[in-house]
Amino acid sequence: MIVADTPCTAAGVFTTNKVSAAAVDVAKRHLRSGTAQAIVCNSGNANAATGQTGLRNAMRMCQRVAQQAGIGKAHTGLVLPSSTGVIGRQLPMDKIERGIAALAARLTRGATVDAAVAKSILTTDLVPKHAARTIGLSRRVQLAGVCKGSGMIAPNMATLLAFITTDAAISGKMLRAALKQAVAVSFNRISVDGHTSPSDMVLVLASGAAGHAPIQQPGRDFERFSHALTALCHDLAYQIVLDAEGMTRVMRVCVRGAKSQRDADRIGKAIVDSPLVKTAVHGGDANWGRIVTAAGYSGAAIDPTALSLDVASGPAGRRNGRTSQCVLRRGQPIRDDPRTRQRLARIMTAQEVVFTLHVGLGKATTQWLGCDLSRRYVTINADYTT
Amino acid sequence: MIVADTPCTAAGVFTTNKVSAAAVDVAKRHLRSGTAQAIVCNSGNANAATGQTGLRNAMRMCQRVAQQAGIGKAHTGLVLPSSTGVIGRQLPMDKIERGIAALAARLTRGATVDAAVAKSILTTDLVPKHAARTIGLSRRVQLAGVCKGSGMIAPNMATLLAFITTDAAISGKMLRAALKQAVAVSFNRISVDGHTSPSDMVLVLASGAAGHAPIQQPGRDFERFSHALTALCHDLAYQIVLDAEGMTRVMRVCVRGAKSQRDADRIGKAIVDSPLVKTAVHGGDANWGRIVTAAGYSGAAIDPTALSLDVASGPAGRRNGRTSQCVLRRGQPIRDDPRTRQRLARIMTAQEVVFTLHVGLGKATTQWLGCDLSRRYVTINADYTT
Repeated sequence: MIVADTPCTAAGVFTTNKVSAAAVDVAKRHLRSGTAQAIVCNSGNANAATGQTGLRNAMRMCQRVAQQAGIGKAHTGLVLPSSTGVIGRQLPMDKIERGIAALAARLTRGATVDAAVAKSILTTDLVPKHAARTIGLSRRVQLAGVCKGSGMIAPNMATLLAFITTDAAISGKMLRAALKQAVAVSFNRISVDGHTSPSDMVLVLASGAAGHAPIQQPGRDFERFSHALTALCHDLAYQIVLDAEGMTRVMRVCVRGAKSQRDADRIGKAIVDSPLVKTAVHGGDANWGRIVTAAGYSGAAIDPTALSLDVASGPAGRRNGRTSQCVLRRGQPIRDDPRTRQRLARIMTAQEVVFTLHVGLGKATTQWLGCDLSRRYVTINADYTT
Repeated sequence: MIVADTPCTAAGVFTTNKVSAAAVDVAKRHLRSGTAQAIVCNSGNANAATGQTGLRNAMRMCQRVAQQAGIGKAHTGLVLPSSTGVIGRQLPMDKIERGIAALAARLTRGATVDAAVAKSILTTDLVPKHAARTIGLSRRVQLAGVCKGSGMIAPNMATLLAFITTDAAISGKMLRAALKQAVAVSFNRISVDGHTSPSDMVLVLASGAAGHAPIQQPGRDFERFSHALTALCHDLAYQIVLDAEGMTRVMRVCVRGAKSQRDADRIGKAIVDSPLVKTAVHGGDANWGRIVTAAGYSGAAIDPTALSLDVASGPAGRRNGRTSQCVLRRGQPIRDDPRTRQRLARIMTAQEVVFTLHVGLGKATTQWLGCDLSRRYVTINADYTT
């Protein structure tokens, strides 16, 4: 449970999955007012595909929090519910209600969302994920966030749960704009397995306690806040990829020169989602034909004779000398000699590999994050419910 | 090499990948005449992403076959090339030309495409795939086909190489219509890993040697021929799934009551492609939440409260008693008792599992074939080139 002292300006971004979880439906409804005071989350059960009973249970979670955390029974709409876990089972409401009562009895005033909160929302995650930023407006403003997610991670949207709190003073409209922008380039550009979950949400509560002049329109303060929120989301999204189920290596895909932004993102997503690219990355194998053919079936405009591809190691690999190798230049493969192969082999075993695809048809660019596909991903997911 | 005694009516369906292999570009051009006499195929090298050199090499393969298999140097356009294997390397033309010369010297007259031909085109396949059908028109008409493919298998199109020969007498227009129809419901509804290859093609040569009145318009003869061709393609497509890389279990997805045909196919494809559904099938785990949420993000119209889902074992599992279990009825999960769980566990360990999703929004139906995702798929694909 995350409970603010007073009602906060609130915004959220939610899964686009049409089979959405009950908590998503209820949280969306409660957010219409633009105000919220608490978030309550359970893990182990997604409360999705659970029909009317599921909706009633999500509402009951909110009622209990409102009653027991000092918000007041009349203000159930100030509570945002969230659930993650197995789909298609009803929530064990006895256990949930006992949990809410226990938590309400020991709320810590003045605490921020930190490692302990991050830990409490994990499912198959191995590592708690949290981040914080501080910016100077007329007063010092803090942002802190936690998130969870390591499988069923695909964009549109949010592919995970993330809860962000800040003491910034900001209008609902501006907060929604900043959140939308931040999520678009962070959580919406990572993919672990291409499966959009029914439970995903990113919620932000802004209390205004920092006491600066409220941000109510675009301008320098908004830019600073927005920039910090985006950086925070990038940080959290990267942590998700680093803790992806079974992952051993990060894959960063940079697309340059696509005909449109939509095309750039289609290409980026097709590459990070391809099981053949993901297994090649796992094997440390520069099988770049899989990368260009993923671009080829992405639906984006592609001219094979205009394509160039560079393979490079990420920041962590820089110490190993030259770390970038062109493998395809305007549709022509580069000469396949032993030295090139050696260099590629070295690059591909880095902790992070970077593929930069030059499409040569326009000016749109994007960057996507994904990871390899390992035997352990299969093991983890072959028997999750039973 | 497959060489007919005389020029045949010919038709083909090709990959939709924009990074198409040189053989695809050349075969498409050669098929414009509607006539062909030979198919030449190499495996081990896809001749894709190989630029102008690749195109010249594909043409040279055709020239050599025309010269050496008695078709005549002036008729290079009657030869259809095909390549499968690693992407981004130039063909070893010395080896290819020696191979063509050796094969041309020992062509067997009157042979049909059979297991030996099927074996010659394999790459990571474990099993040669071939099938035959006979139909009675005014004369007995034979159809025979071979195909290969076990990874980089996704629809639109053909996800593999398939070569079909028949002695039917049929016009080019009717042959193209029959092939398009057959491929749409067979090869275009299977998916092993969602990665559309740059090399895929299904080619059919019809010699007319059966000697019946040529099929030149819709009607009973066309229906019979078309039906047999579709059955042949279904047979070959099923063999591809059975030999998919690392597969241990077939997944059949039936979609009923979708709003449109496009929606039905979007749902079918989203389910067979989801790594989470595929790993659950591998683990024999009835984690059906993954199935309905894949439908939820497929892009098709979905009303969660109208969804029903049955899980059943395929034909091979029928001996185990009751083999079908409803898990979701109009958006409500069925009661999760030990007997149901036991039954589901039995169903899910069958050689083939069948998911029937009732969308409840219309009348469109479809059926897709896929398979599980195993550790062995990862092993096979983690180090294919190097």
